[in-house]
Amino acid sequence: MQLGMVGLGRMGGNMADRLRAAGHNVVGYDRDPAVSNVASLAELTANLEPPRAIWIMVPAGVTDATIDELTPLLGEGDIVIDGGNSRFSDDAPRAQRLAGLGIGYVDVGVSGGIWGRENGYALMVGGAEEHVERLMPIFETLKPEGEFGFVHAGPVGAGHYAKMVHNGIEYGLMHAYAEGYELLLKSEQVTNVPQVIKSWREGTVIRSWLLDLLDRALDQDPGLEGVAAYAEDTGEGRWTVEEAIKHAVPMNVIAASLFARFASREDEAPSLKAIAALRQQFGGHAVKTD
Amino acid sequence: MQLGMVGLGRMGGNMADRLRAAGHNVVGYDRDPAVSNVASLAELTANLEPPRAIWIMVPAGVTDATIDELTPLLGEGDIVIDGGNSRFSDDAPRAQRLAGLGIGYVDVGVSGGIWGRENGYALMVGGAEEHVERLMPIFETLKPEGEFGFVHAGPVGAGHYAKMVHNGIEYGLMHAYAEGYELLLKSEQVTNVPQVIKSWREGTVIRSWLLDLLDRALDQDPGLEGVAAYAEDTGEGRWTVEEAIKHAVPMNVIAASLFARFASREDEAPSLKAIAALRQQFGGHAVKTD
Amino acid sequence: MQLGMVGLGRMGGNMADRLRAAGHNVVGYDRDPAVSNVASLAELTANLEPPRAIWIMVPAGVTDATIDELTPLLGEGDIVIDGGNSRFSDDAPRAQRLAGLGIGYVDVGVSGGIWGRENGYALMVGGAEEHVERLMPIFETLKPEGEFGFVHAGPVGAGHYAKMVHNGIEYGLMHAYAEGYELLLKSEQVTNVPQVIKSWREGTVIRSWLLDLLDRALDQDPGLEGVAAYAEDTGEGRWTVEEAIKHAVPMNVIAASLFARFASREDEAPSLKAIAALRQQFGGHAVKTD
Amino acid sequence: MQLGMVGLGRMGGNMADRLRAAGHNVVGYDRDPAVSNVASLAELTANLEPPRAIWIMVPAGVTDATIDELTPLLGEGDIVIDGGNSRFSDDAPRAQRLAGLGIGYVDVGVSGGIWGRENGYALMVGGAEEHVERLMPIFETLKPEGEFGFVHAGPVGAGHYAKMVHNGIEYGLMHAYAEGYELLLKSEQVTNVPQVIKSWREGTVIRSWLLDLLDRALDQDPGLEGVAAYAEDTGEGRWTVEEAIKHAVPMNVIAASLFARFASREDEAPSLKAIAALRQQFGGHAVKTD
Repeated sequence: MQLGMVGLGRMGGNMADRLRAAGHNVVGYDRDPAVSNVASLAELTANLEPPRAIWIMVPAGVTDATIDELTPLLGEGDIVIDGGNSRFSDDAPRAQRLAGLGIGYVDVGVSGGIWGRENGYALMVGGAEEHVERLMPIFETLKPEGEFGFVHAGPVGAGHYAKMVHNGIEYGLMHAYAEGYELLLKSEQVTNVPQVIKSWREGTVIRSWLLDLLDRALDQDPGLEGVAAYAEDTGEGRWTVEEAIKHAVPMNVIAASLFARFASREDEAPSLKAIAALRQQFGGHAVKTD
Repeated sequence: MQLGMVGLGRMGGNMADRLRAAGHNVVGYDRDPAVSNVASLAELTANLEPPRAIWIMVPAGVTDATIDELTPLLGEGDIVIDGGNSRFSDDAPRAQRLAGLGIGYVDVGVSGGIWGRENGYALMVGGAEEHVERLMPIFETLKPEGEFGFVHAGPVGAGHYAKMVHNGIEYGLMHAYAEGYELLLKSEQVTNVPQVIKSWREGTVIRSWLLDLLDRALDQDPGLEGVAAYAEDTGEGRWTVEEAIKHAVPMNVIAASLFARFASREDEAPSLKAIAALRQQFGGHAVKTD
Repeated sequence: MQLGMVGLGRMGGNMADRLRAAGHNVVGYDRDPAVSNVASLAELTANLEPPRAIWIMVPAGVTDATIDELTPLLGEGDIVIDGGNSRFSDDAPRAQRLAGLGIGYVDVGVSGGIWGRENGYALMVGGAEEHVERLMPIFETLKPEGEFGFVHAGPVGAGHYAKMVHNGIEYGLMHAYAEGYELLLKSEQVTNVPQVIKSWREGTVIRSWLLDLLDRALDQDPGLEGVAAYAEDTGEGRWTVEEAIKHAVPMNVIAASLFARFASREDEAPSLKAIAALRQQFGGHAVKTD
Repeated sequence: MQLGMVGLGRMGGNMADRLRAAGHNVVGYDRDPAVSNVASLAELTANLEPPRAIWIMVPAGVTDATIDELTPLLGEGDIVIDGGNSRFSDDAPRAQRLAGLGIGYVDVGVSGGIWGRENGYALMVGGAEEHVERLMPIFETLKPEGEFGFVHAGPVGAGHYAKMVHNGIEYGLMHAYAEGYELLLKSEQVTNVPQVIKSWREGTVIRSWLLDLLDRALDQDPGLEGVAAYAEDTGEGRWTVEEAIKHAVPMNVIAASLFARFASREDEAPSLKAIAALRQQFGGHAVKTD
């Protein structure tokens, strides 16, 4: 089917490629004329036959501005899809604004990263039944080939919500492996840590795609010497813990994973300065001064 | 090759079956005459040609007693293999005692649970090169068919150590999924939680065998109504955190997973009684009295 | 000086008493005519000479409604004080609305609970210098007698912010004692746990008012048998962790304290059901079914 | 009464001073002849009238060696007191060895640090009733003047156990303050963080001696610029968490405090390297390379 794609970066560009390879007619727009098929959003919408479907794949910070710019160019029956990393709570207000103009809105949480073009993208979709149904040809092509990898998770917002929780879980999983990895290294009971991790890829309870990737990273750099102990975090981990707080869900594991990333970016943590200062105060313990 | 197997329970029995199906000659002994091939350990050793290899697969609590009973029946050049869930720190003393008699000792961490008979068992092996080499025909049959699932992790103790860390990681992974699952249920943003979890099995960053099993459990019982919120723990999770403490490894995630299991088994936690009592003391907050 | 007090519950009523005992002229209003000095907010403001100072001490959920009802009755130069448990982020919008009418706004975080009437209330104040100065006679009376217990913490919102962090710390402190208390009970190495806790009240590094209260609680009920292991939480603990997430502050201790309260109120935690179900799936471990 | 004191460092020396100031006859021995009253342990015991009481106040690592050296010089009816930071599990074996020679053993957990000489030392005592009673004159002098600060916590080992839990709680308390302090600094909602902390010293729920010391540290160095974010830990924090694991006590708060100290001493944490490497693998996220 025909699809407008706004944003042709690493994710949007690969998704457009995968769709075209399957015979879909994708008209792509990007700020960067070098990768864009059309010169403007106006030209994009002019090149799509109503009722249009336009997939927005831009950084979460500019999604609303993009939708605002796009809206006057759309008409009744069109559908806007947000496949970016928006906070789920942004979806309902957007859907409501667009519904007032007869325009549909569907949110899609997309997983798969740089591997999605080949393996397919896992899709978590939120929206009205009728809108989701119209987009199924697109979803069928983007998703992986097996029986899993797609879910209509609920009404508008449910797609981003499911993706947010997915990412929260991802934080916890990664950190569980990371802690085990560090213990293996420090205890020195095991003589070849990368080999142990590689062996875990089959037959164990903890086999997973993340473990495959950890093995791959260690194949490329056995001591991870080219990687600093510094981890960014994106919104989803934070939002997951915020939602846990809102719904009174004990979430020590995912929260600890998030906090460990925060700590990895601190140079001179005030909390630990306070601990050291207190130890000096009551016990006369020496402090490091640098 | 020929192998003596001591302990023919769920694990030992299945492993013996897998070995026999591949043509190995396994003589099994179990306390329970209904499943045992021989009447005693003496008969077991008498039925094996020296140099013997004897795999012990009994509950960790009786491993040492079993080895003590077995030792006088063994001779120089024999090898004892402990495939049970011993604490790694028990391995070196055993190996030393046996080495004094010219008997070898190999420790094997075995993963795979009830699925191992069909899929193969992941094996993490600790011991001397010569002993491990002699046992390779057994290991080759027990391990999964792919290129992973076996590692000679280091000297005596390294096998159980690797398995211990494997299980510690397992605690963290399981709890990450569990926290995400609980948030999905409580937030009610997603209308069909089991469907979302099923969809994650392909294309996502968090796909894994444990996720497959969670989906399987939800297929069998969508609300997990037949399962109480009560989780046992076995030694490995505790030992992993103890080792983290010993080696100064920050391990919030795995420790929190362990503590959550402890808490699940508490009826009236004194700590929370203390919190409630304190709130009443300073704020006059009402307490629940039951 | 003259002060209007809106809300004469446990906190507001005691504060009015403390102020009157020091010679201030307090006119109090409460919905409950039995404790109110005047029949309405209109009568309250009519009984105060401009420029008025009106202290609002109502549940956080009705603070905005109370201010809205009060505003038309006020005039330029008046000051509204919110001494309740508002989220700090509500303060700036209120201050702005009132400033448009020439009315000042001051937020005060109040600590001291049921003990404040006698011992004084610790006050953390946010607002403009000129407003805070005008209210100093009130603050001087409410605060404890010593040199501490009062701070002008910063501009509008800073008072509630400081109080929020105070309460977050309180969660962590309480839980540290609670964990130690539980370990003493369960390990049974110490034969008289309440006596040990009592002894800690002097000379130790961990002596504190909360410890005094724990001792008091144990004096009244040595086994805390009349108190259920069930702990409520109020907004401040949650907001503290939300702020930590916003500002990338690692906050494992306070977050864990909050999560433990959440867990104390769960009957059948879905997360632990998931753990038990997973153990059954991979290991054939029995589950409790009830 | 007469007391032998072995070890005249910061703790032992101050305690000897406090005892002498109250009229006790203390004979002190230290390896350092500059501070020792006698030239050897033999001279020490020779200078004490049987039945002797000898208080050992040496680093935990040399306590057993000291006792071994001392034992042949002692006789039936003598009492050895260990006031150092021994692991509680060392006490029972020592007591048993000494009991075979008719020598008593008492373990004392001592809190108070460098402030103890003036304020008194909190004492947590383990041992037999008759031995504790004989030592009461010493304990009465060492303890603070008020009604608290001394407890006979139970049989041999109970003193060190109570002190161990005390220190575990101390870790949690310190970290709760530290987290709140860091949030205040980073959020910048409060304009003068040290003033806020100072104000908390009276009237608040969180007032404590540790808070007094934090204020003191900030008075001396308002930005804690002379203190590195680097915190040592001593055995007690680790032992407390080990005991929690043994007795299945959920201990997220104290464990997190301990782990934060571990992390403060890591330069390039392998766990965070693994997280960064994984993010690069699945998402193509850039890593810091240094």
